Amino acid sequence: MTQANSRKADHPVDSVFLERWSPRAFSPEALPEQDLRTIFEAARWAPSAYNSQPWRFIFARHGTPEFDKILGLLIEFNQSWAKNAPILAILLSKKTFVPPGKTEPVAMHSHSADAGAAWGFLALQATKLGYAVHAMTGFDIPRTAVEFEIPDDYQVELAFVLGRRADKSILPEALQARETPSPRNPQSVYVFEGAFKPE
Amino acid sequence: MTQANSRKADHPVDSVFLERWSPRAFSPEALPEQDLRTIFEAARWAPSAYNSQPWRFIFARHGTPEFDKILGLLIEFNQSWAKNAPILAILLSKKTFVPPGKTEPVAMHSHSADAGAAWGFLALQATKLGYAVHAMTGFDIPRTAVEFEIPDDYQVELAFVLGRRADKSILPEALQARETPSPRNPQSVYVFEGAFKPE
Repeated sequence: MTQANSRKADHPVDSVFLERWSPRAFSPEALPEQDLRTIFEAARWAPSAYNSQPWRFIFARHGTPEFDKILGLLIEFNQSWAKNAPILAILLSKKTFVPPGKTEPVAMHSHSADAGAAWGFLALQATKLGYAVHAMTGFDIPRTAVEFEIPDDYQVELAFVLGRRADKSILPEALQARETPSPRNPQSVYVFEGAFKPE
Repeated sequence: MTQANSRKADHPVDSVFLERWSPRAFSPEALPEQDLRTIFEAARWAPSAYNSQPWRFIFARHGTPEFDKILGLLIEFNQSWAKNAPILAILLSKKTFVPPGKTEPVAMHSHSADAGAAWGFLALQATKLGYAVHAMTGFDIPRTAVEFEIPDDYQVELAFVLGRRADKSILPEALQARETPSPRNPQSVYVFEGAFKPE
């Protein structure tokens, strides 16, 4: 993870935030079951509106028909590198919730943001265990809902790859040059005191 | 944070995930500027589609007109405890993005989930520094968009409180009984291998 050192924070955050990035070179070696469970466990403890816990994950292991099913939903570009990963997964969110003591579901405003927080927690726990994750929205989202028979009250949020990094030489040449952590906007772009001043 | 010990993970996650919870008793003491910046800095390093970084934060400090403006947007129940906090904030997401080399914005599918990941990172960094955060969707979201002049290509995701915990005796009696970390669903509710089986 030497490339993580090319990331410089403007303020002293915990190192895990800087160590996490989204590589494309993955080694197909399987994850120990315990690591997989620990990574999904971190998502469990995310905050959510009314503790509704709207996050749902579908995952598949390399070499299974279900892995090929998820892989086949990705755009060709993402297939070209994601095919090596030991785990492919899809993040869903549940759009409705039956509040305690009620019988009718209500629409949850923050289902996507809450699921995103759970995904973020998962990404950090994976990083702490020495794994990498890489999320994608470059996949056929409507077809995902059809092929996985996802009911209307769930939303397909993103897909992701989970596994150990491999040497970038396994990637097509054009991708090797892009195998590096991405930079970020300064806080002036996204933190506003008192009033919103969009760019 | 002794109550955090009442949370038991089924798999050995990093302690920060279990230490973070959403109290309502906050002390109004101001945050040092450095801590505030470090907490917002963690959000910066979240992953996002095409590194579009769609998260935006508006915050206000206790004792300012802008604090009262955010407080006035909350439902009465949330006002009853959030009024003590040193910081009130709103999370927005940008729904569109102009890809590198292009001139026209495109709709971003994961803007809410990506902003949620950034919010999750912020919550964990706050926890690491000994602060607490508590998100809310119990506020007037349409009026927030009007009062803060938020353009149509941004979405109001959630509001949150940030500060140091106070003794629960400062809360109304009914809330004192609820000042405890919430439990979670087991992985069987949210992790599915190969096929989705919603409850």
